[in-house]
Amino acid sequence: MSMRPIRMGMVGGGRDAFIGAVHRMAASLDGSMELVAGALSSTPEKAMASGADLGLDADRTYPSWEQMLESELALPADQRIEAVVIVTPNHVHFPVAKAAMEAGFHVVCDKPLVLTDEEASELVAVQQKTGRVFAVTYNYTGYPMIKEARHLVQRGAIGKVRKVIVEYNQGWLATPLETSGQKQADWRTDPKRAGAGGAMGDIGSHAENLVSYVTGLKISEFTSDVTTHVEGRSIDDDTSILLRFEGGARGILTASQICPGCLNDLRLRVWGTQGGLAWHQEDPNTLKQTSLEGPDRIHHRADGSLCDAATAVTRLPGGHPEAFIEAFANVYRGAAAAMHAGQDDGEGYDYPTVHDGARGVKFIGAVIAGGGQGWQKFQE
Amino acid sequence: MSMRPIRMGMVGGGRDAFIGAVHRMAASLDGSMELVAGALSSTPEKAMASGADLGLDADRTYPSWEQMLESELALPADQRIEAVVIVTPNHVHFPVAKAAMEAGFHVVCDKPLVLTDEEASELVAVQQKTGRVFAVTYNYTGYPMIKEARHLVQRGAIGKVRKVIVEYNQGWLATPLETSGQKQADWRTDPKRAGAGGAMGDIGSHAENLVSYVTGLKISEFTSDVTTHVEGRSIDDDTSILLRFEGGARGILTASQICPGCLNDLRLRVWGTQGGLAWHQEDPNTLKQTSLEGPDRIHHRADGSLCDAATAVTRLPGGHPEAFIEAFANVYRGAAAAMHAGQDDGEGYDYPTVHDGARGVKFIGAVIAGGGQGWQKFQE
Amino acid sequence: MSMRPIRMGMVGGGRDAFIGAVHRMAASLDGSMELVAGALSSTPEKAMASGADLGLDADRTYPSWEQMLESELALPADQRIEAVVIVTPNHVHFPVAKAAMEAGFHVVCDKPLVLTDEEASELVAVQQKTGRVFAVTYNYTGYPMIKEARHLVQRGAIGKVRKVIVEYNQGWLATPLETSGQKQADWRTDPKRAGAGGAMGDIGSHAENLVSYVTGLKISEFTSDVTTHVEGRSIDDDTSILLRFEGGARGILTASQICPGCLNDLRLRVWGTQGGLAWHQEDPNTLKQTSLEGPDRIHHRADGSLCDAATAVTRLPGGHPEAFIEAFANVYRGAAAAMHAGQDDGEGYDYPTVHDGARGVKFIGAVIAGGGQGWQKFQE
Amino acid sequence: MSMRPIRMGMVGGGRDAFIGAVHRMAASLDGSMELVAGALSSTPEKAMASGADLGLDADRTYPSWEQMLESELALPADQRIEAVVIVTPNHVHFPVAKAAMEAGFHVVCDKPLVLTDEEASELVAVQQKTGRVFAVTYNYTGYPMIKEARHLVQRGAIGKVRKVIVEYNQGWLATPLETSGQKQADWRTDPKRAGAGGAMGDIGSHAENLVSYVTGLKISEFTSDVTTHVEGRSIDDDTSILLRFEGGARGILTASQICPGCLNDLRLRVWGTQGGLAWHQEDPNTLKQTSLEGPDRIHHRADGSLCDAATAVTRLPGGHPEAFIEAFANVYRGAAAAMHAGQDDGEGYDYPTVHDGARGVKFIGAVIAGGGQGWQKFQE
Repeated sequence: MSMRPIRMGMVGGGRDAFIGAVHRMAASLDGSMELVAGALSSTPEKAMASGADLGLDADRTYPSWEQMLESELALPADQRIEAVVIVTPNHVHFPVAKAAMEAGFHVVCDKPLVLTDEEASELVAVQQKTGRVFAVTYNYTGYPMIKEARHLVQRGAIGKVRKVIVEYNQGWLATPLETSGQKQADWRTDPKRAGAGGAMGDIGSHAENLVSYVTGLKISEFTSDVTTHVEGRSIDDDTSILLRFEGGARGILTASQICPGCLNDLRLRVWGTQGGLAWHQEDPNTLKQTSLEGPDRIHHRADGSLCDAATAVTRLPGGHPEAFIEAFANVYRGAAAAMHAGQDDGEGYDYPTVHDGARGVKFIGAVIAGGGQGWQKFQE
Repeated sequence: MSMRPIRMGMVGGGRDAFIGAVHRMAASLDGSMELVAGALSSTPEKAMASGADLGLDADRTYPSWEQMLESELALPADQRIEAVVIVTPNHVHFPVAKAAMEAGFHVVCDKPLVLTDEEASELVAVQQKTGRVFAVTYNYTGYPMIKEARHLVQRGAIGKVRKVIVEYNQGWLATPLETSGQKQADWRTDPKRAGAGGAMGDIGSHAENLVSYVTGLKISEFTSDVTTHVEGRSIDDDTSILLRFEGGARGILTASQICPGCLNDLRLRVWGTQGGLAWHQEDPNTLKQTSLEGPDRIHHRADGSLCDAATAVTRLPGGHPEAFIEAFANVYRGAAAAMHAGQDDGEGYDYPTVHDGARGVKFIGAVIAGGGQGWQKFQE
Repeated sequence: MSMRPIRMGMVGGGRDAFIGAVHRMAASLDGSMELVAGALSSTPEKAMASGADLGLDADRTYPSWEQMLESELALPADQRIEAVVIVTPNHVHFPVAKAAMEAGFHVVCDKPLVLTDEEASELVAVQQKTGRVFAVTYNYTGYPMIKEARHLVQRGAIGKVRKVIVEYNQGWLATPLETSGQKQADWRTDPKRAGAGGAMGDIGSHAENLVSYVTGLKISEFTSDVTTHVEGRSIDDDTSILLRFEGGARGILTASQICPGCLNDLRLRVWGTQGGLAWHQEDPNTLKQTSLEGPDRIHHRADGSLCDAATAVTRLPGGHPEAFIEAFANVYRGAAAAMHAGQDDGEGYDYPTVHDGARGVKFIGAVIAGGGQGWQKFQE
Repeated sequence: MSMRPIRMGMVGGGRDAFIGAVHRMAASLDGSMELVAGALSSTPEKAMASGADLGLDADRTYPSWEQMLESELALPADQRIEAVVIVTPNHVHFPVAKAAMEAGFHVVCDKPLVLTDEEASELVAVQQKTGRVFAVTYNYTGYPMIKEARHLVQRGAIGKVRKVIVEYNQGWLATPLETSGQKQADWRTDPKRAGAGGAMGDIGSHAENLVSYVTGLKISEFTSDVTTHVEGRSIDDDTSILLRFEGGARGILTASQICPGCLNDLRLRVWGTQGGLAWHQEDPNTLKQTSLEGPDRIHHRADGSLCDAATAVTRLPGGHPEAFIEAFANVYRGAAAAMHAGQDDGEGYDYPTVHDGARGVKFIGAVIAGGGQGWQKFQE
């Protein structure tokens, strides 16, 4: 708690952006990181204006990320940024992340990690070579009740896992919003900037990661249906997948952005030989646990019975709800702790790593390529 | 309301049976039908004892269904049974239904209709030839809110349907219950008596029918994963399917009996271009309707705004919940009305017909045969 | 199950009535009772027409209840009615119930029992003298989960009870519906026919009874606010009460019919030294149990862990919801069992007795008389 | 967004404290205020250690609040604190708040404002004389859906308000926790430090304020029951109140800390002549709106249909839940905006003022004094 904030420089996240502001709130909530520099837009004028909006020093508001890296390196070590936070459209993640690590900076990068399997592999290699902390903001793993779910699975509370259903339903792309000039819709439906996956890349990647985090299961085979419902759109807006895991468990994953009325409807259900778990992101402070017989149990954040990992990322007494920003801040907290320790691999720290990000990219690519093709083998 | 009860003879439904008692309550709730004869068990002694339990006249309690048909035919027309109700294990449906129609009786038959596509086709043919009323107790379509959902889809309230998720999750077969002598588990996991489908036949058939009833969509293609998790079991206990419908809609259907804590967890969600619908069988008196923007709407049974078809099968003011038996009774009510009219095809009456049953059998068979085989064409 | 139906004669419940049809469905669901005679309306023509609607024999469809009692007594004992079921407006309960018992019939009577404390005392005396079974249809005590709640309190699962909140909120009288000619609103807002209590009598009486049934607590003192919100109405439509119970527990009871959107919103919450219970009539198949620490428990009807009293009144497996009619039928089932046994006091049978009804009438009267008057002593 | 943070000095909130950390997170989430000085404990050693924990400059970590005010005044105007934030036990609020305003500082003070009506009146007078911004952290009014509820009432969406039920149920004091040395329980059950009200002061005050904020109704009369259930406790742990409002509306308020399983169970329901509203603090992102007929409407934060006041305090898209800290931060945001403007009365700014705090203190005192005494007049 008493650790000083890590100094961060942000790439992207200027005016009109969405996720950059979330990163800043998440970083500042606990004082995990502090924004001291930024290359906030690919348009230099907007970059400078956005820096002023945020009260950044003018001389640390940069017109480009290349300039930021170069200028910050020229500052004394105790002033320069320690971490680069990448909140741009997906296609910019790779060059910035690679250059930042090679320049000696830690990285916090939004998901999906990069556009291709090759890029992902290269980032993994660079991270291993440089030993920099690399956090991917799979923010939903930051929720205390997700940590409790993982704990319950690990300690055998529901037995051996047999069935998983994970859904991420949204409705905001049910219409051709990208034709209206809405910036978020514009780049997220453009394969050149978003990558091969639309719904699959943007939210399916969260779903895949959540299953992996909670169950530890490895996907061995899948069959997918990759659909674009909205005319004129060049990327999937509705993808459904049947999953087979090593060891025999079965699963369903669906990621859809054409479900009107669904806001950010991420749901996870897991059943094992002895019981089940159910969690819903829009009501994140509870976790339902079921068993073969007898009453369901509803766990509440901070009800006096949760595991250490969940308790460690809880700020408030039970009944005082915590939510999206707090979960996001938990990723920052874990990454910042690793940065203070100079840690390179996430061991002993609780944040999603470049390996999680790379696995996600591989899966997105496989799902899109295999859409409608029947069963496909998959190896992480 | 003032119509006299149809006289029914029941096949199956004796001691240890489950669904027979439900049929009797459903028949008597509104006085739609009246139990006057029965061949209640395949074991003659149990058949006779069960008849006594139910207060049946001893001379109309029969040791076999063949005997029941023969003896009842010998009674005067105004005394003999008018309908045969079949609540046996699945493999007995076909011979009884066929013989009953050919003897001139109407039929109410539990689902799935029969074991094979060939049997289904033959029953359809016999029904058409004899003109008897043939109701299949897809009881979930009896719920008022399901009728409202169908109405909302038909009148375009959610636009053109794009995505359907239907789930039927249970947990009672998470253990090898059939090895304990539990009668329901015993026959439902035996392909010779249940048919090719286990979870798929027993509850997946309800899921398929619910989608068809509410959306009117026709399945054109699917890929399925048919799994048996419990060791030693010779039938699926967990089946998941990706669906493609004529016209481009996509769907997911899952039927599983190995989900501990799930009791009778049948859920339907449908999204169209303009909105969505969500219904849950364990909370059957409400229906959620969503739209592209603005608040969700929660419809309540009898809240003064429902369609005629829903209102017609509602017995109580809003807030006085109706449930499973009442929905089941609505199937009986519809079938009895058709029988009073001598109707043969369900037109103008609200009950599931032999055609619904036959389509279900075809789909079950295709799903099981195609499990793990990649995409399969399907034609109803 | 195999007991023959008790023969009943119904007073009230003809065309335009509401609760009579519920009684008939409740009686027939399990075959507890059978309608064989009726004086279904105070208007002789309507009485006769209503009998025809219901398929009653014309010679047992009577123009008045006096006629029914007289004529039925003249029938052979094995044909005549055994029980009189009273489903009239409240002011008719007393004379019919008294005469019926004195004529040797058992009685099933809707609530509130009668209009005044004096009438209630007299019925208690007549019941004791005649030894007839007398059931008052406080139907909400028929729900399995209410029986489970009572059981949990009795076995100390929540410790010593300290606080109770019971609410019965409706919205159907938020407008002056009685001026529209709606029959139910008409008599229920007329003190001459409904009694002193409007909302308090009609639904507050259920709330009082539910608390008594579940907790066994006795009210010792109260302060009430008795309000009529709708102009021109001569009876309360919104009553709220603070309760003190013998032994120190505290409570809140509110009964209101001017809450738009509330349908039949009966909720009970009870907290003791060790835990709490919460139940909601519109979602009647679950019961929430809480404790000092750790997860909540959600009990489901038929989840394999319920008490004998709850299990005994459950017809279906868990997840197959039961609801209002089934709970009502449980009162009939208990009363019919007592009638078969010739029992007179409810001991060993599970149905609300004339004593419950009398206590309710006393409480309604005290609450209305004491409205706005400060704290009032109360003795059952 | 681009306004610089207000410099704040905090009184209380050191090690072992609870609400101080919440204030700090709320202040920093949007950068509304910045902690630059503190007198964090009444124990000088703990004060200094707590300052170090938080990374405060040692020379602005003060052993007492008097010292903080004196030393900060000696700093240049552009460095010294601008606001004093008071997060001590209640009995310390008054002297600090008075001295702070008289020294020219703005004030943010936790609730309840002070111990007595006299203190409250004096703070109101000092505030009016000094013109300082004075915010009381009735944080629940910071929730967007509460602002939407207020808006809906004001624009007549539910008609004229007739009935209000507000509850604040907790369970953490169901046992004599204060005897265990738990610091929060210790002072909150000590009338000398908490004030006359226990449950009533700590959480009943929030309930009163919420009703006032949403409905604008003024209490004119009440009858209360003020109870201490836990033996040896010298303050109420369970208070229930019947309310009458000017204009005829009726209400129920209950504040209880002996309800096991209730965490922070603040619920508000309001019904008017045309509809109703329901909100639950533990699920704060939705608001239910009902009407005389037809479906309920579930409003979601950021569903594209909310009022300006709600939208203005929303940070995230719909479905990305916001919660307790975010609502608390909204109070800070409103207060900081007023401080930047030098505003003294809250007009045009959205935060609870000293007048709200004073009304709360008056009501707490009246409720406790009038407990069990019958109906009491009340004038704000």
